[in-house]
Amino acid sequence: MMNPPELDQIAAELTRASRILVLTHIHPDGDALGSQLALGMVLRGLGKEVCMYGETEVSHLYDFLPGAGEIAVELPELGKFDCAIALDCGDANRLGREMTALLTIKPFLVVDHHAGHQDFGDRRWVDPHRASTGEMVYDLAVALGGEISQEAAYCLYTAIVADTGSFKYSSTTAETFRVARELVLKGVKPSDVAGKLFDNYSLARLRLFQRVLEGLSLHSSGRIAMISAPNRFFAETGAAPQDTEGFIDYPRSLTSVKVAAFLKEAEVGKVSVSLRSKGADCNVAKVAAIFGGGGHRNAAGFKRLDTTIEQLSGELLRALEPLVEKC
Amino acid sequence: MMNPPELDQIAAELTRASRILVLTHIHPDGDALGSQLALGMVLRGLGKEVCMYGETEVSHLYDFLPGAGEIAVELPELGKFDCAIALDCGDANRLGREMTALLTIKPFLVVDHHAGHQDFGDRRWVDPHRASTGEMVYDLAVALGGEISQEAAYCLYTAIVADTGSFKYSSTTAETFRVARELVLKGVKPSDVAGKLFDNYSLARLRLFQRVLEGLSLHSSGRIAMISAPNRFFAETGAAPQDTEGFIDYPRSLTSVKVAAFLKEAEVGKVSVSLRSKGADCNVAKVAAIFGGGGHRNAAGFKRLDTTIEQLSGELLRALEPLVEKC
Repeated sequence: MMNPPELDQIAAELTRASRILVLTHIHPDGDALGSQLALGMVLRGLGKEVCMYGETEVSHLYDFLPGAGEIAVELPELGKFDCAIALDCGDANRLGREMTALLTIKPFLVVDHHAGHQDFGDRRWVDPHRASTGEMVYDLAVALGGEISQEAAYCLYTAIVADTGSFKYSSTTAETFRVARELVLKGVKPSDVAGKLFDNYSLARLRLFQRVLEGLSLHSSGRIAMISAPNRFFAETGAAPQDTEGFIDYPRSLTSVKVAAFLKEAEVGKVSVSLRSKGADCNVAKVAAIFGGGGHRNAAGFKRLDTTIEQLSGELLRALEPLVEKC
Repeated sequence: MMNPPELDQIAAELTRASRILVLTHIHPDGDALGSQLALGMVLRGLGKEVCMYGETEVSHLYDFLPGAGEIAVELPELGKFDCAIALDCGDANRLGREMTALLTIKPFLVVDHHAGHQDFGDRRWVDPHRASTGEMVYDLAVALGGEISQEAAYCLYTAIVADTGSFKYSSTTAETFRVARELVLKGVKPSDVAGKLFDNYSLARLRLFQRVLEGLSLHSSGRIAMISAPNRFFAETGAAPQDTEGFIDYPRSLTSVKVAAFLKEAEVGKVSVSLRSKGADCNVAKVAAIFGGGGHRNAAGFKRLDTTIEQLSGELLRALEPLVEKC
């Protein structure tokens, strides 16, 4: 199999560099963190001086990842780096509030798989047909001739599983399975990773889940399902805002549902919305864009300040109704 | 990669035969049905006369499988077959009430992956290290030189996903991913299969799920989680007894839980119990055996007549407590 030329160019730049800053997007998910940590390990194995930075603290959901504690939340001295690489960032804003300073590092490399990627940086390998950035980082590590340790393999496997919902999303391809197989051959135990990602929940989270499910509502002849977590639910159950990860898969699993929406009020007046859809015709990224958000065709989201769940759900429904009529 | 000699022998027997009866276990799950249907298609493609038989009607959960309607529930005239093959049967009793008659067909071949498989039939390929019988049937189809159509690939992929919980269970290996990749290259869309297996639920099922979760209880310092569905829950929610598939994954997902038990009263006085555990040290098949049941190390079950959920849950707890002390 031939490498795409963009991949080889990125590998060549990394090979030339000595002091590399490895970045990912703010509020990093499993794919972002797994990719960042694995590439950091591989580059260190090649003798590079590596710094991993991200302004958002690693969520407790992902603190099982080896090396998660080594990601700097304080901006390092940027002058010393002769290369930066941003992983899984769909656009420059996803680098966070230090975006402008970070982009002064040259060359600035980008590896990403988001559809609708907005170009930034000096060299880019962007492939929206890949299911996860983790898959791409695996190929990058091979192109670099780097050693993929069992720990790095574990991070990359986590990245893949997190971004494909354990090989369930439509993004999953033969390439995904090719890389998953290689990573298992390097010693990853699939059930270990699945256990950490999916079987590691608190009773408080389960009680919150029950509360959220009770409020499920269906609209547009059952094609839209909506769930919500008002701020008081967190206090009442003792669950944390991150504990809602995966809740939206449940309304999405209903036969009639084309679009599932989850409105979460982690802080009073501040509502974040996750959207999930089924099939190629039901692009929720377009609806998220109306509200200033973004994402993938079947998984997108946005945030709103100074609003309530009641207010926003009405607005959102009006935006979703024309979409599901075509699904 | 070398084929195991048992596989080549099974392939040779099938090649010799002209009229083949393809069997699987009673109350067939996704692995059983996917394997049965796919092997039937492959053998027909090789010019064999094939009959697929199973005494239990195909559950509505699996009726999306291509060819599911062709499986005979009436016992065919057995004299005409010059070969039978049983897929995914851990022991002869799993063939159902016609076991004795079925076993008169010679040669009687067996392909299975159950740990603790009890030998029966004339030739066997049994490999408990394989995650699903579907994986093994893929290798058998290749050994036969048969064509794996897109429909057959779909059945085999379903078998694999069903028996690994979408690549989450500890049985998942590099071999599993090798076969999954081959099947995707044959045109299977992973999200289609995942959608059919996991995103195809009724609102009645969701309401039942809520009711069941409300009754969740924890024991042995949170190491045992128990849920139950008394018969009246089905009437009250309109859900069917098969709709509980997957419910047990939820209590199993709690951090503290080593063993999850689900007691279901599909008919009044008749309670079936599913057990799930985490890790190599926590063998629930042993506990199931005490109650006359069986299964795998981390997934087992049994049935009881003339009992109540209250009565059985006490007995079961006493059997589980010593187990989780060692986990």
